[in-house]
Amino acid sequence: MSQDSEYSEGDLRNTGMSLKHDREWDYELDRIVEAVEERDATKVGLQFPEGLKRRGPQVADDIRALVPDDVTVMISGQPCYGACDLDTFLMKRTDVFVHFGHSPMKNTDKVIYVPLFSNVDVFPIMEESLEELPDPEASDERPSVGLVTTAQHMNRFEEMKSWLDERGFDVRTRKGDDRLTHEGQVLGCNYASADIDADHVLYVGGGKFHPLGLAMEHPDKKVVIGDPVNNVVTVADTEKFLKQRYASVHKAMDAEKWGVIFCTKIGQGRWEQAEEILEDNDDAYLITMDEVTPDRLRNFDMDAFVNTGCPRITTDDGPQFHKPMLTPGEYEIAVGNKPLDELSFDTFHGTW
Amino acid sequence: MSQDSEYSEGDLRNTGMSLKHDREWDYELDRIVEAVEERDATKVGLQFPEGLKRRGPQVADDIRALVPDDVTVMISGQPCYGACDLDTFLMKRTDVFVHFGHSPMKNTDKVIYVPLFSNVDVFPIMEESLEELPDPEASDERPSVGLVTTAQHMNRFEEMKSWLDERGFDVRTRKGDDRLTHEGQVLGCNYASADIDADHVLYVGGGKFHPLGLAMEHPDKKVVIGDPVNNVVTVADTEKFLKQRYASVHKAMDAEKWGVIFCTKIGQGRWEQAEEILEDNDDAYLITMDEVTPDRLRNFDMDAFVNTGCPRITTDDGPQFHKPMLTPGEYEIAVGNKPLDELSFDTFHGTW
Repeated sequence: MSQDSEYSEGDLRNTGMSLKHDREWDYELDRIVEAVEERDATKVGLQFPEGLKRRGPQVADDIRALVPDDVTVMISGQPCYGACDLDTFLMKRTDVFVHFGHSPMKNTDKVIYVPLFSNVDVFPIMEESLEELPDPEASDERPSVGLVTTAQHMNRFEEMKSWLDERGFDVRTRKGDDRLTHEGQVLGCNYASADIDADHVLYVGGGKFHPLGLAMEHPDKKVVIGDPVNNVVTVADTEKFLKQRYASVHKAMDAEKWGVIFCTKIGQGRWEQAEEILEDNDDAYLITMDEVTPDRLRNFDMDAFVNTGCPRITTDDGPQFHKPMLTPGEYEIAVGNKPLDELSFDTFHGTW
Repeated sequence: MSQDSEYSEGDLRNTGMSLKHDREWDYELDRIVEAVEERDATKVGLQFPEGLKRRGPQVADDIRALVPDDVTVMISGQPCYGACDLDTFLMKRTDVFVHFGHSPMKNTDKVIYVPLFSNVDVFPIMEESLEELPDPEASDERPSVGLVTTAQHMNRFEEMKSWLDERGFDVRTRKGDDRLTHEGQVLGCNYASADIDADHVLYVGGGKFHPLGLAMEHPDKKVVIGDPVNNVVTVADTEKFLKQRYASVHKAMDAEKWGVIFCTKIGQGRWEQAEEILEDNDDAYLITMDEVTPDRLRNFDMDAFVNTGCPRITTDDGPQFHKPMLTPGEYEIAVGNKPLDELSFDTFHGTW
């Protein structure tokens, strides 16, 4: 039980779902049990994101209590970081496959998505965020503001819109591309929802990775971060991030041998990008893998890597790799196909 | 290039293929190129064990020089520890799939196995091993001795047999079960080749994991280890190993919640064993995964784990897991289904 002293139940510090608040999740057991009955299922697969895996056994118990005895419940032990990251082994081998904690990247009958909405109150932090937004009373026109959030706060999105509207803002929102389920939703790799006509964007959510990508993708906008989890308001600052990325690009400029990573996770494959690099560069080697980790790449004697999979691995974990790790766009700069000032954030579009 | 100071090219210290000798591998490029031509292949997949992954780019270059320009060569970045551990993603998506460094666990047209035999001279260490074997001159009968080795020395097996025969031994060998390709071959999880009528077994090969399993599986025999790689002769001693295993079993005796691991690697699935445990124990939860690592299990709030996958993970990596990790046989002891003295080595039979 040594873990408990460090991480109490429900503490999701290392998961990107960091929450300091107590909460009850709604696992939507009724939908799962209904599917088991409808399909006469004997095998049920459950997949949780990292921070919720601890809840797996309890959810399995709850399901077992509600279904026939001959139903086997299996929990995925594979790492899971998003809706792009379905456990396809388990999905193919179970009659009912449930993916918790993310909204659908693509609708399919094979998967029951249970979103697990946060019950954190977002309005106190929105109140604080007003200080970083234009003052509606200072102008004749209603100042326009974009509003985005993550899947776990989607259930409050309409309320958030009304709240800003009532305070005098012209609230601009949009649904992004196919990769996103909801209006106003952003992913760590996709900010198409913020592609709106407004100089300010309010991001309501935990963590700093999402708003950083958002600010990188929309350098013309002021991105205000209202973090209801850590109870803090900040403005996204891309400078440090850019410095780190330029440092990696510079280091990679001397590279002779390039490892080109094709990620085999269902929602992270960008085959055309990988193939294009290979066709252009005789010193590029295609490496396929699911989890892209420093340990795995250490085995390869390359001078630099370009990752066509999850851009967050490249940028957030970048410094942990033993050799420079670039996004496809950064690679183009490093090999001289593009000028340095075209460095941009690597976003991910479409589904699979 | 910081790695190079620590590990020189061909140094496989951390791989279970530890080799201090210089060597040239024969990658059997002709077989690969022939298959590309025959199948009109456009995609070739290469899978190397951990210690040989560094050679991947060079082998890819050599193949690319010999095949048409439109052939894409892909290297698996997945960890690989045996013939049980095929990269099925790559196998399914390439026209020619080559698995290096292990002998076939099961013959299939989908895979070209390139065994990569060692060119280490085994006879000096066999000469030294004689001191631990019965003296043929001391008795009227030829003393019987079993002979086993690993895949990488299989090419010298007949010579080794003759060598012992010439020195007055009655050499006993056999082919194990389906899981093994060759007469006299042992795996880290299968010692059926040593199931012979002889009080002494000579194991010729590197590492201590294989002979330890061998000695555990055959406690009645004296297992002499002639290690041509580290150039040392020892006799397998199971005492320390047994103490560690008993310690884990004792710790797990208090466990309430059990995680039952089903390994999804093609040659490591033991579904019946997993199912049996689940049926018997309401506090057992089935967890599916490919790589079984301490990090992945840390996310689950279990008191103990039982691993139906690779027994070497359980025993060799056991102490690194945050909770006791048992083999299926050890689990039976921990929950009281079997007496303590039935503790045995977990071996793996059959293919898939």
